[in-house]
Amino acid sequence: MTQPRISIIGTGLIGASIGLGLAARRDRNYEILGADRDRSNARTARKLGALDREVGSLEEAAGGAGLVVLAVPVTAARQILQDIGPYLDPNAVVTDVCSTKADIMRWAQESLPPTVSFVGGHPMAGKEQSGPSAASADLFKDATWAVTPSPRADERAVGVVLGLIDALGASPLYIDPAEHDQYAAAISHVPLLASVALFRMVRDSHGWEDASLLAGPGFRDLTRLASGDPVMSRDIMITNRDAVLHWIGRLQEELSTIRKAVELGGEPLLDLFRSTQLDRDSFIMNPRTRRRPEGPEAPSAQDAMARMFVGSLYDRLKDLSNRSTSVPMDDAELRRKLGTREKQ
Amino acid sequence: MTQPRISIIGTGLIGASIGLGLAARRDRNYEILGADRDRSNARTARKLGALDREVGSLEEAAGGAGLVVLAVPVTAARQILQDIGPYLDPNAVVTDVCSTKADIMRWAQESLPPTVSFVGGHPMAGKEQSGPSAASADLFKDATWAVTPSPRADERAVGVVLGLIDALGASPLYIDPAEHDQYAAAISHVPLLASVALFRMVRDSHGWEDASLLAGPGFRDLTRLASGDPVMSRDIMITNRDAVLHWIGRLQEELSTIRKAVELGGEPLLDLFRSTQLDRDSFIMNPRTRRRPEGPEAPSAQDAMARMFVGSLYDRLKDLSNRSTSVPMDDAELRRKLGTREKQ
Repeated sequence: MTQPRISIIGTGLIGASIGLGLAARRDRNYEILGADRDRSNARTARKLGALDREVGSLEEAAGGAGLVVLAVPVTAARQILQDIGPYLDPNAVVTDVCSTKADIMRWAQESLPPTVSFVGGHPMAGKEQSGPSAASADLFKDATWAVTPSPRADERAVGVVLGLIDALGASPLYIDPAEHDQYAAAISHVPLLASVALFRMVRDSHGWEDASLLAGPGFRDLTRLASGDPVMSRDIMITNRDAVLHWIGRLQEELSTIRKAVELGGEPLLDLFRSTQLDRDSFIMNPRTRRRPEGPEAPSAQDAMARMFVGSLYDRLKDLSNRSTSVPMDDAELRRKLGTREKQ
Repeated sequence: MTQPRISIIGTGLIGASIGLGLAARRDRNYEILGADRDRSNARTARKLGALDREVGSLEEAAGGAGLVVLAVPVTAARQILQDIGPYLDPNAVVTDVCSTKADIMRWAQESLPPTVSFVGGHPMAGKEQSGPSAASADLFKDATWAVTPSPRADERAVGVVLGLIDALGASPLYIDPAEHDQYAAAISHVPLLASVALFRMVRDSHGWEDASLLAGPGFRDLTRLASGDPVMSRDIMITNRDAVLHWIGRLQEELSTIRKAVELGGEPLLDLFRSTQLDRDSFIMNPRTRRRPEGPEAPSAQDAMARMFVGSLYDRLKDLSNRSTSVPMDDAELRRKLGTREKQ
């Protein structure tokens, strides 16, 4: 029996980080293939250990793969979805890591053969540098990973993608694609534009030469997203245009409110800073999490492809059971946990 | 002869970090005193090793100190400048770390006795957490530290403050107070307001509960400044109101331009992201620095107070001379370096 195969198409920061994370798993039972339009990217990824093998065509990447991960800007993903269709195995699972989800879900539905399962994904992670040489096996550790299964993706396919997310140390969050795009506009896409606006505001001013001498960690952090990949940023905005325009408007309103508070000074301004500090500190100290309704189903071990991530799920279940057995439970405690009662 | 004394008034993040950095210097020949309106802050700073001694009054802090460092929000500094005047030694040097410089320079001029030298300062450093328990001896390492000597500060006083900056691993930048405030509004104060606006925009929306589930490192980095000390933020805005209002207007214009680019999509949007990425990457990779016109004068060793930082300056000079003698120079090379020529 041949080893199951995972193919990563697009080996930039995200694709190569997925490869590194997957390659680092002990006792892994799958091969990691990678392809990139820019072959030097894929070669770098292979040299860094993110790939077992680099291939030069979509045909080679798609053929025989149990799981295909699209890690490219969203408009490039559209074309790739059309191109790989003929080469995919009938039961292949395809996922992506694009920052917008509604369009790609539609494109996958239109382009992929009906037996192929598409499960959309979006890891909420990144860093300032791009390209495979900035990749890290830990990039997704403790990150939220949005998951948007297509209506025709079966449970097994969702299980494979949950296995991938679990193997990379991230937590899945099921979400509707349209809802994802609205929230991502607010929490990610408009902050990116604000980062660009802040940088351009100072960079294009006459004082730049002198002002930049005063730049500290605050300015660097706030303008970090302005160093993101331009094609990815453009693609985000054109595939989430309406939501982004709505939230730019909201940001402008918010700035007008703050401007008035600065004009007034005194207590209203202090109140604004106080309540914001309180709210943000409570957000940082108690990050909201949504527990998945049930744990990922261990994929059927009958299915070679599904067994790719069985190890990781198995370790996790073992870990949970170790934890629960480390303190012996008496009958009463067990009944309380299970919600059953002794007779009164 | 008694040990020279450095007094830190205000032992929050910045004050305690200065204390830790000064306390960590080997063979230091000064005592570090600290005072805070909130005595538990100063006690924490002492427990962490940032202070040798904690005192409960401005009289105790100011009396006998060679160098007084005001590390409090700028409006509190105004009152303290008035209060410490009577207790200061005639040759004391007073400096501050406030984020705006024009007002405090005027207040120091009005309040301090004429023999006392005031040298304004502003380290371009900080972090998300506040208070002495977040302090670190490395906080100022490689940071720019704006320096605004008052007209009546003598060379010796400037040397003492340069010695302090050097001892903490930062680089001084001489700048006019009004110019500092203009540039700081663009590079620091309006980014702070943008951080607040971005956080409030999402936090006050109906979707917050769900949107916050998607928050990743981008949102956290961009809203970091919204967790800053509210009194400090308020003080910044009221002492730099006009410049801040000017730059909020510029940010709003910039957002309108970007909004139009998002509406258009395509090439103009891609060009915007491309040129911004290029400009920012070149700013990050080649940070602008302004060399100080000449090295800080080694303060006269006759003056006990000035001798506080002689060690640090001496080490630096020794380091420089070690480096230049490590590769022996021949006569021709030496002449070339010195700009002199051999006869043809």
